[in-house]
Amino acid sequence: METVNHDAMRAANMRSIFNCIRAHGPVTKRQIQDLTLLSWGSVSNLCGILLERGVITEQKAQSAGPGRTPSGFDINVEDNLIIGIDVNLIGMTGVVIDLRSRVVTRTRQPIVSHRSGEVLAQMKALICQLLAQVPAGSVRGIAVAFPGQVDAARGISIWTHQFGTFSSVNIRQYLQDAFGMEVILEHDPDCMAYSEHLLGAAQDIDNFIFVRLSLGISMGMMAQGEIYRGKRGVTGELGHMTLVPQGKKCLCGNRGCLETLSSSRAILEQCHLALQQGRAKGLVRRLRGHYETLTLEEAASAAQEGDRDVRRIFSRAAGYAGLAIANAANLIDPGAVVLGGELAEYGDLYVEPLQRSLARRAFGGALPLRIAQVGSDAAALGAASLFIERVFMRLSEGA
Amino acid sequence: METVNHDAMRAANMRSIFNCIRAHGPVTKRQIQDLTLLSWGSVSNLCGILLERGVITEQKAQSAGPGRTPSGFDINVEDNLIIGIDVNLIGMTGVVIDLRSRVVTRTRQPIVSHRSGEVLAQMKALICQLLAQVPAGSVRGIAVAFPGQVDAARGISIWTHQFGTFSSVNIRQYLQDAFGMEVILEHDPDCMAYSEHLLGAAQDIDNFIFVRLSLGISMGMMAQGEIYRGKRGVTGELGHMTLVPQGKKCLCGNRGCLETLSSSRAILEQCHLALQQGRAKGLVRRLRGHYETLTLEEAASAAQEGDRDVRRIFSRAAGYAGLAIANAANLIDPGAVVLGGELAEYGDLYVEPLQRSLARRAFGGALPLRIAQVGSDAAALGAASLFIERVFMRLSEGA
Repeated sequence: METVNHDAMRAANMRSIFNCIRAHGPVTKRQIQDLTLLSWGSVSNLCGILLERGVITEQKAQSAGPGRTPSGFDINVEDNLIIGIDVNLIGMTGVVIDLRSRVVTRTRQPIVSHRSGEVLAQMKALICQLLAQVPAGSVRGIAVAFPGQVDAARGISIWTHQFGTFSSVNIRQYLQDAFGMEVILEHDPDCMAYSEHLLGAAQDIDNFIFVRLSLGISMGMMAQGEIYRGKRGVTGELGHMTLVPQGKKCLCGNRGCLETLSSSRAILEQCHLALQQGRAKGLVRRLRGHYETLTLEEAASAAQEGDRDVRRIFSRAAGYAGLAIANAANLIDPGAVVLGGELAEYGDLYVEPLQRSLARRAFGGALPLRIAQVGSDAAALGAASLFIERVFMRLSEGA
Repeated sequence: METVNHDAMRAANMRSIFNCIRAHGPVTKRQIQDLTLLSWGSVSNLCGILLERGVITEQKAQSAGPGRTPSGFDINVEDNLIIGIDVNLIGMTGVVIDLRSRVVTRTRQPIVSHRSGEVLAQMKALICQLLAQVPAGSVRGIAVAFPGQVDAARGISIWTHQFGTFSSVNIRQYLQDAFGMEVILEHDPDCMAYSEHLLGAAQDIDNFIFVRLSLGISMGMMAQGEIYRGKRGVTGELGHMTLVPQGKKCLCGNRGCLETLSSSRAILEQCHLALQQGRAKGLVRRLRGHYETLTLEEAASAAQEGDRDVRRIFSRAAGYAGLAIANAANLIDPGAVVLGGELAEYGDLYVEPLQRSLARRAFGGALPLRIAQVGSDAAALGAASLFIERVFMRLSEGA
């Protein structure tokens, strides 16, 4: 039989009170009640929990005249910092944020090795470095944005083809043991989607998919203002949607995945092929023989300066991405699409052909398309912000 | 700012009480409280609404000795019948169910015409026929399961390629005007998914996708025990997932959709092609020249009796279906897949190759696969059962 989850309701109310104080603090209990429409009892009770937990502070009543000024609540910004780490194929980004999701400090470094032991060690070193930059005892937790298949409930990286040796690695346990504080693990496109919802291109929408168009391609989804998590944490594998069943072998082991057709890696591979075949004359002139150092920027510049072969490589890749997004949208009807990752920065070369292909195949009229705004901190910042929701807004400590 | 929806919580509590009474009635208020864990106040208040609405009845207290037996609540089965209609390319199915989702009467008829005016007229006639079979005044509402793009919130068929002339038809309004009772419209695979959850193969699971494998292919999804509805009602178009970008033209206007590869229509077309090319010798022997009357059953029999060409047609179609389901599952991680529609009845010819193709491409280990159990009433029965949830469990009448 169906049971009703009172805790879920109370947690939602707590989040509502927290968001109210974050937006309007300092505020009195009466103001919170007016703004959230919650009962006096709920506001008192839940403010009590937040106070006890040190998430909010109470500015005591002033009696500066007749009557009594009631005490006001505000966010306890100083004592509640959170570390967010974004680990991807190219590098690690670390941020420290406060409870208003403002970045206090940040750092970025290239990946030293793709072996799991060394990736974990580098994460640990990065966290130590960030901890040294803020007052001792001010950091309350660590959040990690990770690629591949992530079991967010248990904090485990199930598998990622980006780091060949990662398989069922309990990242949460590893970092909790190392630092003695609470740790959460999240799938990186989910973190980026959350950042865009909190601070970027999707602040006014509760239903959308976020597509990361980069060396790999992945997807995060918000439904009714919440990250959609699926049953086992294997969501958002848009990059491994099979589009050409007998196509090119993908890093995941299957064939003809979207990543083999539309990622920046695929675009560079196709440029190399064109160079080998003596095509892409504009690119040839630009590179002057230094083919091995070809970057996405160089390829894009050649296309923008008129190299039709390279332009066609971009638009073909983007066409497949639009097709895959249409396939996804026709299943889940997301309401809007936010594009992030470096390929989303190439409007005429990539985004426009993507949009044409999407419009041709998406049912139900034009699907609003937006470009991500948060920038390169998005995954780390989103992970740390999700920590606020997942840990600070829990009803009971621990669990 | 985020606001908390108290009404959603109260509606969920009302559903919980209704389901408790449906499962255990007659039950006392005290028993309901113990079974639902709701407060005395909530139980009293919500039972009051259900009583007033005539959804439940109260058996008055008996004083047959010392003390007092408290009154018991039970479902008001007699006065609350609901009509469910399933409209599809081949025919219309109508059922009348009670509040326990038991079928009181049913009828089935072929589609007379595919023009919208005539489809609506046939629906009206079918409903009149059903109304004549039950006591006057006992039917409380009508629920329609419809193919294509359905705006369930507004009761509008946005578009369906199955009935060429349907485009933005307000079916709810039409039937409300005709019968003066409340009407809901639902996407047919959602109704079938709901039926399987309520009475069939998915009673023990809250997260799954239901795939209808028939003349067309479509998908319904349950997440956390609720029908997933998307933003605008254009969900579950699995049949129009593009798998061969330059492939065969589909009825929807695009090319290479799953329906052109894996539906029963596609299988029959490929059989006809094989016959024209002088292949499929087993099928040739079976048909004795009567090619034009070829049915799926005949094709399947030929394959089962050893026609390798036809067997290959089935397994190739099923392989694409498995691939498309893997593409969907890797995005939304449904937890399980339930297969329905006539193709799901061909285990060795269709389901097994589908499952192999799915297993090869789905991430996160084997995805449990089940076969639908409810049978040919599933869509009509599911629609009518969704009426209970959408209309009887609403907090205020009307709206």
